[in-house]
Amino acid sequence: MAWRRLSGDGTAPAEETQLNRLARLLKPQSVALIGATDSSMWSLYTYQNLRAFSPDLPVYCVHPRHDVVHGQPAHRSIGAIGQPVDLAYVMVPTSEVIPVIGEAVSAGVRHAVVLTAGFAETGAEGRALEERLVALATEHDLVLLGPNGNGFINASDQLAPYGLPIAPPLHAGPLGIVLQSGGLASVVLHMAQTRHIGISHLVATGNEAMVTATDVLAYLVDDPGTAAIAAFLETIRDPGRFRAVAEAALGAGKPMVVLKVGRSAAGERAALAHTGALVGDRDVVRAALRHFGAVQVDSLEDLLVTAGLLAYNRAPLGRRLAAVTASGGACDLIADRATDEGIELPEFPAATTTGLTELLPAFSNPRNPLDVTGYVVVDPTISHRALEIVVEGAPGHYDTILYQATLPQSPPRDPSLTLNRLKAVKAAVERSPVPVVIQTVSSSDISPFARSVLDEVGLHATNGIEHGMTALGHAIDWHERRRRLMGRQATGTTVTRERVRLDGAGNGTLSEAAARELLASGGVPVVPARLATTADAAVAAALHLGFPVVLKVASPGVAHKTDVGGVAMDVRGPDEVARAFTSITASVRSALPRARVDGVLVSPMRRGGAELLVSVRRDLAWGPVLAVGLGGVWVEALNDTSLRLLPVGADQVEEALHELRGAALLRGGRNRPPVSVGRVAEVVVAIAAVAMSLGEELEALEVNPLWADGDDVEVLDALVVMR
Amino acid sequence: MAWRRLSGDGTAPAEETQLNRLARLLKPQSVALIGATDSSMWSLYTYQNLRAFSPDLPVYCVHPRHDVVHGQPAHRSIGAIGQPVDLAYVMVPTSEVIPVIGEAVSAGVRHAVVLTAGFAETGAEGRALEERLVALATEHDLVLLGPNGNGFINASDQLAPYGLPIAPPLHAGPLGIVLQSGGLASVVLHMAQTRHIGISHLVATGNEAMVTATDVLAYLVDDPGTAAIAAFLETIRDPGRFRAVAEAALGAGKPMVVLKVGRSAAGERAALAHTGALVGDRDVVRAALRHFGAVQVDSLEDLLVTAGLLAYNRAPLGRRLAAVTASGGACDLIADRATDEGIELPEFPAATTTGLTELLPAFSNPRNPLDVTGYVVVDPTISHRALEIVVEGAPGHYDTILYQATLPQSPPRDPSLTLNRLKAVKAAVERSPVPVVIQTVSSSDISPFARSVLDEVGLHATNGIEHGMTALGHAIDWHERRRRLMGRQATGTTVTRERVRLDGAGNGTLSEAAARELLASGGVPVVPARLATTADAAVAAALHLGFPVVLKVASPGVAHKTDVGGVAMDVRGPDEVARAFTSITASVRSALPRARVDGVLVSPMRRGGAELLVSVRRDLAWGPVLAVGLGGVWVEALNDTSLRLLPVGADQVEEALHELRGAALLRGGRNRPPVSVGRVAEVVVAIAAVAMSLGEELEALEVNPLWADGDDVEVLDALVVMR
Repeated sequence: MAWRRLSGDGTAPAEETQLNRLARLLKPQSVALIGATDSSMWSLYTYQNLRAFSPDLPVYCVHPRHDVVHGQPAHRSIGAIGQPVDLAYVMVPTSEVIPVIGEAVSAGVRHAVVLTAGFAETGAEGRALEERLVALATEHDLVLLGPNGNGFINASDQLAPYGLPIAPPLHAGPLGIVLQSGGLASVVLHMAQTRHIGISHLVATGNEAMVTATDVLAYLVDDPGTAAIAAFLETIRDPGRFRAVAEAALGAGKPMVVLKVGRSAAGERAALAHTGALVGDRDVVRAALRHFGAVQVDSLEDLLVTAGLLAYNRAPLGRRLAAVTASGGACDLIADRATDEGIELPEFPAATTTGLTELLPAFSNPRNPLDVTGYVVVDPTISHRALEIVVEGAPGHYDTILYQATLPQSPPRDPSLTLNRLKAVKAAVERSPVPVVIQTVSSSDISPFARSVLDEVGLHATNGIEHGMTALGHAIDWHERRRRLMGRQATGTTVTRERVRLDGAGNGTLSEAAARELLASGGVPVVPARLATTADAAVAAALHLGFPVVLKVASPGVAHKTDVGGVAMDVRGPDEVARAFTSITASVRSALPRARVDGVLVSPMRRGGAELLVSVRRDLAWGPVLAVGLGGVWVEALNDTSLRLLPVGADQVEEALHELRGAALLRGGRNRPPVSVGRVAEVVVAIAAVAMSLGEELEALEVNPLWADGDDVEVLDALVVMR
Repeated sequence: MAWRRLSGDGTAPAEETQLNRLARLLKPQSVALIGATDSSMWSLYTYQNLRAFSPDLPVYCVHPRHDVVHGQPAHRSIGAIGQPVDLAYVMVPTSEVIPVIGEAVSAGVRHAVVLTAGFAETGAEGRALEERLVALATEHDLVLLGPNGNGFINASDQLAPYGLPIAPPLHAGPLGIVLQSGGLASVVLHMAQTRHIGISHLVATGNEAMVTATDVLAYLVDDPGTAAIAAFLETIRDPGRFRAVAEAALGAGKPMVVLKVGRSAAGERAALAHTGALVGDRDVVRAALRHFGAVQVDSLEDLLVTAGLLAYNRAPLGRRLAAVTASGGACDLIADRATDEGIELPEFPAATTTGLTELLPAFSNPRNPLDVTGYVVVDPTISHRALEIVVEGAPGHYDTILYQATLPQSPPRDPSLTLNRLKAVKAAVERSPVPVVIQTVSSSDISPFARSVLDEVGLHATNGIEHGMTALGHAIDWHERRRRLMGRQATGTTVTRERVRLDGAGNGTLSEAAARELLASGGVPVVPARLATTADAAVAAALHLGFPVVLKVASPGVAHKTDVGGVAMDVRGPDEVARAFTSITASVRSALPRARVDGVLVSPMRRGGAELLVSVRRDLAWGPVLAVGLGGVWVEALNDTSLRLLPVGADQVEEALHELRGAALLRGGRNRPPVSVGRVAEVVVAIAAVAMSLGEELEALEVNPLWADGDDVEVLDALVVMR
């Protein structure tokens, strides 16, 4: 990465150095607008934003031909300013960018934002231009955000060198935002503002010639003003570093909520069209993000509402929820959505029911979720008084309380009533032994009046039931998951490299015998098998192993044995074995005359139980990836697999198995005992360890099926392909 | 229904009469507020709403002790008003409701809204009170909305006898709304207002003592000012009438969008807690709504955005979409969400690409979905000019165009620029041969300024990408589905009732032989079988049918034959048949010593292909319900079935099969030919017809499995239980 060469002395700088440089970029002491002109809206907006939110910040307008820009004296060049410039904000035409950056570095500028487009996003020529720009910056130790980006907003310090309009106030708060889309940056900002989600920073990374989204994420993880992070990502350019940053976020307890686009083929094409960046294998990226503990969402609404809830609220410690609402319809919606999210709504304890019965009108029915009834119109205090009673009853009964607040759309005649009600809510929230999440019923904007009162009281309200319940589900998941991930240990035996015998047909495929031996040497249970080279030997093997048996051709290079008549299942007697032996060898010889046939493997036939698929493949970006699934049609027709990056621990494998659509099969049923998922996970970990031990030369290791019946787990067939 | 007794002459009144009465209720010429008082917020809000939106409407305040209420002279009783009163709006304490309704009918009032709570929702006592209220109203031909409801809003006529505050303006438009939740009515109204969705009526039905949500739906289907309907439903009290209304809506081309709560066990409990109404079998209700062509959604956002899109836009005629946006990030999101919704994004035709290349800056990449780039900041006209070019290219290439509009958050310095841009968009929309759906990027509120400009131009903007794409998907589905449903014909042979022989063990279960005969007589293909009463006869039957065979005990009253050792599968030779016969009869006699054993059925063993489950059960509310699913673990462990109300046509059965999670299995795979879904559907229709012919005495008819291999479809086992 160019960014890594910044120290200039040929060694990779420490992470701190990069963070310090980003900190200086994001908190400039003075800004020069290069290419400032009254005729450019970008110039005007950037100037207005800087003036509106940081009136004391020195801002210099630079234009080669104008004396006055935006009503203040302009400079003909950066060099002509005569004062130190901390940040150059560049809006000149594409062809002028490199010359003005040259001037900037000569004038001692070390940080720049380049808004100008026309670089790598346009093709080969633009890419070359961008490379020259980066080379120039690197040579002179200049850190550059963009090109083709809108700049950034540092709301913590009220600094906004940002090329699109920002409606005041610039509400500062605990959410850090990074986007790989300039166009959506303003949409996301507006959605955050109207939902009363305060931000620490919002950075649009543009083409990421130097500073990438991952760099910004690293900064936000380190930033004490940021409690949670929202990221809109089209591509992850540096998987290894991203992994380190995501793990740091997890360690720091800062939830990272990611909207990764390109999860469909059409989305992938769309992203490619305007960024030129490949988005990477969708399923692997999702698995990777999950592996690192990121929360994944699919809409801007969920991105903001989920990240907002995580940024503002205490960690929910379990799945039991108590809800206080002002309408039965809201109760219905909350109950349905809670079920979707795996959240329970236990009955209130007796004392709570008694207290609520005393408080509420006779026609109420004090159950969880609670409808305080339309009587709030008569006595608005019953709502927060009900909350107080529910808070009292929390210990041992629920882990989180949801409080639905009706916020005024416009200033009421007596604003102090609203203020006092919300102060009472705040007091209950502070007294509560469990987190209290405030939620609005409607997902319409929170009115400016309501925002000011929430600010004064120090409360955050989550926006609407639909996205609010999604957010609550994600928050519970994230905290649960974090506890698991923080304690995880990859386990499994290591198989030494020497055990692999590449006795395949030259294409890197191991014979089944070699694959079986390899797995067995790693402690993986493999179904017994005897290699028979004659029909008589096959019969003897079958008699030894016990009927029924399975016969399979032993031939390296035959990947799909069934397709060439190389398999006989459920063979029940000696005569049938002899016939099957003859039939198999004849079919294979006829289908593949030049294949080497070592003989026929005879194994006991396993029946009942479940068949799974376990595979490890190497992804170019993310390394070895484990896939587990149910075998047969589940994989073939439904593509029902669950992915994990390696190495994995048994708990992660169990989690992956529980995610399968067909997971219910493992739980058993009438006449079917449950499969020991714990034992399966142990075996999968051992298989994964064998795959890892083969290093980068492993192309794919596939066990299909892995048979499981109660505690019995065995590899029935395996394929290993080396590069 | 009390409502049906309105005519008072003992005959059911014509639907028109009910509609006329509802029309008079919803469009009163004068209103008396009974229980009006300055100390009640409900009274104040209702009075303010009537004054604000219909200043010329006569409104009388009635209170037994006040001379002046809300600043105008009050009356001591309705009788004292001395003017005709069209609608009584009742807010008196619960115990006073019946006396004042008595006074009202004496004064000739024939329509009332009762806001007062404390009736059926509180238990047995309240239920009795409500029954007395209804009896009184029915006796005097008074139509009553409520009790325990907020009233209604008739925005078409700007009349709002509604007990909660309404922020002006009351934007009239084509969406009719009915809710079984008073608390959510104001939330939904506010969400509609802030999304610039104009409403015709909004009615909260409260306890539905007389006027039900179905009555209001019937009214809205008939109302020329309503183009689409949104319904928030907790329960459907009158399934038969609901069905007729839903079918009328379909016939009239008015989409009905339904948010039916209680789809989880927790939601069902929540609804029961505050309405006392059972919500009905969740899965059956969903199937019923689908059957009638209703669009089903799960959030208030989708309820409004989907119904709004359907109310304002032309019918999309297919699944090919062209999209015009101002950001690459929006393109990514649209592409991903389009894929979710089964919407295609074909390439632009060459002429469109050429036109766009000429229009847009050099660094753009004119693909579908189109990003006109951040250059809109320099030249805002490129957005609608791009739309014009895309409109030109529509014929033969796409069925719908999505245009993303950036609407100003506050009035710009020159509002005419916004107006002119939107006028250009409107002109393109009108010229377009295909529907153009306008969409905002953000789901924040549409600003009052933007609303006024949209009004002036006559455009509707759908709110946000996430819910907007859901809405577009629903709209395409609804119009596709309507075409199918309008043309549907139930088919199938009728089996005469006489064919059923109840020769079971007295519990209503038919013997398998009788069930087989019944199905066969209805033209359903059934696997051949011979009843053997000795081992020798079983061997002879097997030799006749061909090996391998299946043996099953023939014994009425044994529902789960496998559990008692009554089945032998894959029996491959004569000796094995004889052994299996002996083993089966011995097992069953030992497990169930008193069961009548008629012998053993011998059938050919079917292998390969797919096994399905087909069942018909009678639902108390909705009548006979068909379930289809894939057999075995799919039903047992995953409950993967798809429901339809009877009668059904083959097209609906095909649709039901395609909905299954395991549907991919039917499409075949390596070594598995596809199943003829058309042939399966024919057979299912025949099975359903047999079930229908058994009338109300049928408890359940279950075929498990129905075996299907290519074009071969056969019943392998069947169970019929009569009441």
